[in-house]
Amino acid sequence: MLSSSSRLQLMAVVSVIILMLSLLYFTNLCNCPGELFSTTPKLRSSLPRNLSLPGQCTCPAGSQLLKNYIPEDEYEDLVQRRAKEFQQYKTRTASVLSRLLFALPNSPLQYPIQGYVVRPLTSTLIPGLGLHAEKRSSYKVTLSVSKGILTTHTPPEEAMVKGSGENKLIIESSSLLTLNDLLAKVSYTSSEYHINTGDLATFQFENDEAVFPIAIKQPQIPVLYDMGTDINSQVTIATKTFLRYKQLRVLVDSIRQFYSNINIIIADDSLEPEKITGENIQHYIMPPAQGWFAGRNLAVSQVTTKYFLWVDDDFLFTEKTKIEKLAEVMEAVPELDVVGASVNGNRFPFALVYEEGEENEGGCLSRKFRKFQPLPGYPQCTVANGVVNFFLARTDAAQRVGFDPKLQRQAHSEFFMDGLGTLLVATCGDVVIGHQPKTADNTVPEYRKFRYPGRSDTEFKLKLHFFKNHLKCIKY
Amino acid sequence: MLSSSSRLQLMAVVSVIILMLSLLYFTNLCNCPGELFSTTPKLRSSLPRNLSLPGQCTCPAGSQLLKNYIPEDEYEDLVQRRAKEFQQYKTRTASVLSRLLFALPNSPLQYPIQGYVVRPLTSTLIPGLGLHAEKRSSYKVTLSVSKGILTTHTPPEEAMVKGSGENKLIIESSSLLTLNDLLAKVSYTSSEYHINTGDLATFQFENDEAVFPIAIKQPQIPVLYDMGTDINSQVTIATKTFLRYKQLRVLVDSIRQFYSNINIIIADDSLEPEKITGENIQHYIMPPAQGWFAGRNLAVSQVTTKYFLWVDDDFLFTEKTKIEKLAEVMEAVPELDVVGASVNGNRFPFALVYEEGEENEGGCLSRKFRKFQPLPGYPQCTVANGVVNFFLARTDAAQRVGFDPKLQRQAHSEFFMDGLGTLLVATCGDVVIGHQPKTADNTVPEYRKFRYPGRSDTEFKLKLHFFKNHLKCIKY
Repeated sequence: MLSSSSRLQLMAVVSVIILMLSLLYFTNLCNCPGELFSTTPKLRSSLPRNLSLPGQCTCPAGSQLLKNYIPEDEYEDLVQRRAKEFQQYKTRTASVLSRLLFALPNSPLQYPIQGYVVRPLTSTLIPGLGLHAEKRSSYKVTLSVSKGILTTHTPPEEAMVKGSGENKLIIESSSLLTLNDLLAKVSYTSSEYHINTGDLATFQFENDEAVFPIAIKQPQIPVLYDMGTDINSQVTIATKTFLRYKQLRVLVDSIRQFYSNINIIIADDSLEPEKITGENIQHYIMPPAQGWFAGRNLAVSQVTTKYFLWVDDDFLFTEKTKIEKLAEVMEAVPELDVVGASVNGNRFPFALVYEEGEENEGGCLSRKFRKFQPLPGYPQCTVANGVVNFFLARTDAAQRVGFDPKLQRQAHSEFFMDGLGTLLVATCGDVVIGHQPKTADNTVPEYRKFRYPGRSDTEFKLKLHFFKNHLKCIKY
Repeated sequence: MLSSSSRLQLMAVVSVIILMLSLLYFTNLCNCPGELFSTTPKLRSSLPRNLSLPGQCTCPAGSQLLKNYIPEDEYEDLVQRRAKEFQQYKTRTASVLSRLLFALPNSPLQYPIQGYVVRPLTSTLIPGLGLHAEKRSSYKVTLSVSKGILTTHTPPEEAMVKGSGENKLIIESSSLLTLNDLLAKVSYTSSEYHINTGDLATFQFENDEAVFPIAIKQPQIPVLYDMGTDINSQVTIATKTFLRYKQLRVLVDSIRQFYSNINIIIADDSLEPEKITGENIQHYIMPPAQGWFAGRNLAVSQVTTKYFLWVDDDFLFTEKTKIEKLAEVMEAVPELDVVGASVNGNRFPFALVYEEGEENEGGCLSRKFRKFQPLPGYPQCTVANGVVNFFLARTDAAQRVGFDPKLQRQAHSEFFMDGLGTLLVATCGDVVIGHQPKTADNTVPEYRKFRYPGRSDTEFKLKLHFFKNHLKCIKY
């Protein structure tokens, strides 16, 4: 049995225990600085602010160093103009939606990190905003944006909202439930009409802050092609001709042998144009010798079907030239843009290895004869970056890249270079077209002069690549 | 002075206090279930999994209901084909990078939420991965991906790594520092070559899980235009002509009055083509009456300068037709694609109000005569969705949208409809072109037949919009 003084001592000790326990409890809950038992570490390791800018690229052995093809007296001005165009290009392609952002640990904030897309000038609820903080007497959050305004509903008595309709919104409440209810009703409205841009929202509670992206996009109207009921409403044959009417007529006859009604578009820059007659043939006369890629771009601009089949004017259709097989692959793999086939066994698949390089120097580009993986379900077809000049292409995709009309004489890979990262390209081995023989009496003398223009044309193209493609070097 | 028994009692009580305090300390730190002082609530409010699919749209009064223009016997097949094309279109445009994702609260995980972009098939460090958990004897995290593999460095003795080189990586360590060091060295490599796709990474520690996006992109080679040193190397004038050689020649003469060397491209589908002569004029002959937009698409396909100025063949240059002013606006606002001007006071700026609508029914589109905000620095210029047929345009942007060659007769807004969300358009009031008078003796009789084709052409276009633009109704 305890004595009265012992009982007093015990009561004192018990009171002290209770006091200390209470102290601990409230210490943990109020998150006071310098708390005795710091439980949740809020370390923020140094996070990168931006993706590092690309450094200089290395030109592989055998590369053409493009600045060597720029005349010295032109070089300074050309480089300046190129730098200005490149800056504009970066402005057009960059936005806050490229910025590196992170979710920080042990934050009571909940917010969307991807997929929040709004129409311009249109009030749209922000999904998933929430505060999950430890118990306090009062909670206060701030949301701020740059290119729009934030709104929420009128708060009930136990809460206060400041800045609804402005770019900085403050919500305060003694009840976490009420605060979260108001957060669930926050909407963002962009202030200006823009078709493709972004904003960043900052969400803050006490020492915690989160930044999340808002994508602002004008929805696009779909542009679809009616495939109709047969190959003629799905594919148009496109070609360009120059001083080779003999071969062209042989080509057309060979097409008609297998496809009697398919539409054929012919871009013609011959020096003395002749008439091409026949049903379902569209013949376009260009200024004489206007050029190879100008003619290609013209022909494609006239296609009304979903796909076009590119052929050269000296090809030859055979029973192995089954357009339907290529259309089948394109239909089965909707992300594909170009499917190349075989010209008498030659498929010419290549990869383009490209590095952006340093901003002032320019990029490094190599063409390599390699392919990537096969297409699912079509083992005879493989992904590549470029193919031979016999291919089926999506009309809209090819038009989006275009055949540069500055390339008047020799050109091929340039279409695939301009299309790198935009066109998904594959090559299939089971569709073959023939090639009319290149004999002396098949070719008019002037033809060779244009078709094989020599060094000046090569130099022109290298000079063009320097500016147009912002390159330092190319290796073929 | 305490007696020995009291001292003993005191020591016992103090020991109990210490024991209880230690218990509390470790309870908080070990996050054991059913802990006495549950401090950090891990509520996960029900988060939306996807952005809700758009519902039916409402056709404003006065809309054309497009299905009414489809012959009954064609309707079923047409709708089926349209649905199939629309599904393909969704496949081409959607990816995991559109999915709604959230950062959950009170998670010890740190990870990138935007900006982590990798090249296909290329090992790239994942920035900002970290675990900031409370003290434990051992820590174990799991990272998993779908379209690639994860790797990290060989672990030191106090850690274990499982699955490096596979799609699921487990890192375990008794030291948080070591674990975070290994996390800082984790790289992702996509398994297949693709030009534009994404993967989702799942990052997990005990009860916490985060999902973050990985953008997989083939970098594109820039395509820049050399602006050269004067207006002739910056702008090409483009036009289309049909049975109006008189007006065309007046137009060309008026151009030469103010711009003696600028390049003029003429697409000509007249029934009996005539020769157009002159320096810096490119004249293209099309199949007779091939069509209005086919001609426009042709002309644009031949432009080699950064910009082209669209003019109709019956316009008239005056001293107020200052192309340089429009070029200045385009250069100052690099995101702009089209800048319209004034045809004798007529600027025709309009907005396109578009709702995607329900998947099977199609969208709702209205054209309204309104504009958006002025351009910064150019108060005489305002953003819109479409303008009058006198404008300066970026050649690459216009080509990316294209003028649909199926539109043979009447058409104008269709270019801006196809370009909605792709072209940033503005209208400026200070550049004016004249219009040659539309008098009886100015027009050949056949011209009116083609230019004002009547109801059949309107019905053709409405039927076309139904399929091509996946629309339910249009209101002009």
